Amino acid sequence: MDVKPRRKGSKTKTRLRAVEDGVARLRSDTLATEEPLEVRLISGGERQTVAVTMRTPGADFELAAGFLFGEGIISSREDIRRISYCTDPEVDAEQLYNIVNVELRPGLGYDPRQLERHFYTTSACGVCGKASLDQLELRGCPVLPPGPEVAPETLYALPEKLREAQGLFEATGGLHAAALFDPQGELLALREDVGRHNATDKLVGWALLEGKLPLSGHIAMVSGRSSFEIMQKCLMAGVPVVCAVSAPSSLAVEVARRFGMTLVGFLRDRRFNVYAGAERIAAGGKGGA
Amino acid sequence: MDVKPRRKGSKTKTRLRAVEDGVARLRSDTLATEEPLEVRLISGGERQTVAVTMRTPGADFELAAGFLFGEGIISSREDIRRISYCTDPEVDAEQLYNIVNVELRPGLGYDPRQLERHFYTTSACGVCGKASLDQLELRGCPVLPPGPEVAPETLYALPEKLREAQGLFEATGGLHAAALFDPQGELLALREDVGRHNATDKLVGWALLEGKLPLSGHIAMVSGRSSFEIMQKCLMAGVPVVCAVSAPSSLAVEVARRFGMTLVGFLRDRRFNVYAGAERIAAGGKGGA
Repeated sequence: MDVKPRRKGSKTKTRLRAVEDGVARLRSDTLATEEPLEVRLISGGERQTVAVTMRTPGADFELAAGFLFGEGIISSREDIRRISYCTDPEVDAEQLYNIVNVELRPGLGYDPRQLERHFYTTSACGVCGKASLDQLELRGCPVLPPGPEVAPETLYALPEKLREAQGLFEATGGLHAAALFDPQGELLALREDVGRHNATDKLVGWALLEGKLPLSGHIAMVSGRSSFEIMQKCLMAGVPVVCAVSAPSSLAVEVARRFGMTLVGFLRDRRFNVYAGAERIAAGGKGGA
Repeated sequence: MDVKPRRKGSKTKTRLRAVEDGVARLRSDTLATEEPLEVRLISGGERQTVAVTMRTPGADFELAAGFLFGEGIISSREDIRRISYCTDPEVDAEQLYNIVNVELRPGLGYDPRQLERHFYTTSACGVCGKASLDQLELRGCPVLPPGPEVAPETLYALPEKLREAQGLFEATGGLHAAALFDPQGELLALREDVGRHNATDKLVGWALLEGKLPLSGHIAMVSGRSSFEIMQKCLMAGVPVVCAVSAPSSLAVEVARRFGMTLVGFLRDRRFNVYAGAERIAAGGKGGA
């Protein structure tokens, strides 16, 4: 009998032993699926694996596109000729939906060294927070223009909207989320993943594939903390306002201040902190952050 | 005037605008520092950059050692001849404490390809959850032997001990933690970082530099979720019981089941779930997970 390959689900059933106050019972529960995804670039007849990442299946094309955008390999959907699951005969059923081929448009080359910066680097560029910001500038990241103006009431409402939309999170408790809102706080898209960077890549990849980049005038919200990488991804996508449920890192704040972004942290229970770009928040009280 | 280079602090002061119910006020707060760390390997007179990671400064030698252990480059402290901050004259003050040199013992070579698996890989090994587990087996990860037996009361007490020890978390709300306990629940070490993988690397690096590996009979606890990578790091260090405050991923559970580890999730408020290796938990009730 032929077994038809199934797409990977984003949830996995499991059996577990729940212990409460010393009493154990067996029950079933749902876990967030974690599986590797390989991204292969096809350019000028050459094929190269450019990333293997542990991710939650679903939105795989968006993840691949967002990753390549964040790495500076592509800058619009026109740069992609075709995006598809690998159908090589030697790829077995288990792997079929874990390999995505991205074929670049003819004439669009790329520099494999762009992809090495995560892991190998020359010290020519320096290794410190300031140098990391300089690199963003060298890669062409602009200082974002003013606007939009966002009301505090709009921000207060975001965590609840994020939670409501996070059906999967409710079920597994195991997923990070990244969401995009318009300036009035209307939810435009939400993506989830076991990895928070992946969730942001999926969101940016969705915007890229929909032809919505740059995301000027939008608000992004992530379920956890904000870091250098999260801010870098949002900056490259042109998102001017980034909110997080938890704290930012020092370098997240520095990215925001250098590139004219608004960074909001600890957004919960009708309160928040503004670490940069307070002029976009139409709040009472004087003084900038 | 000579400016003496200062070690990077793990906290960074910032000014922010706190908004609560529409009222804004300026105040100061403390952020978790995020700065890049470059790890350079020195082997047979050659020097090579093998990693650049965003991390919270502090325990930098432990982070470098734990990372190299996790990558299979070193297996004991004897494999390290010297570990030090880079003091090249061309390295300026800003970078001085962001570059760690690890000199391997004479005769210990390494295969640079070992370090490429994160980013580039051949599809020879397959790209699926099962293949990821197979790779751990190929790298020599053994099935862990039975023991220790841990009482539920011991586990109930861990979150509070983790929080108490997390002085920095209290201050910044921005750090992941990884802690090591003995089977009676006594805290042996705790390390923090903006990155949860880094926190675990620091903990394992500490154990390696102290000559405490393998960590048979110990309990590890992480502040967030458990993933494939967290389980892989604990497995390589020989930790038989891994607890997390939040949910595991599907692949975290599979690693635990395949390699004889106990995996506990949602450990809080005198309850927890056991996803694998329930025989190590001396709980009432019958049946394994």
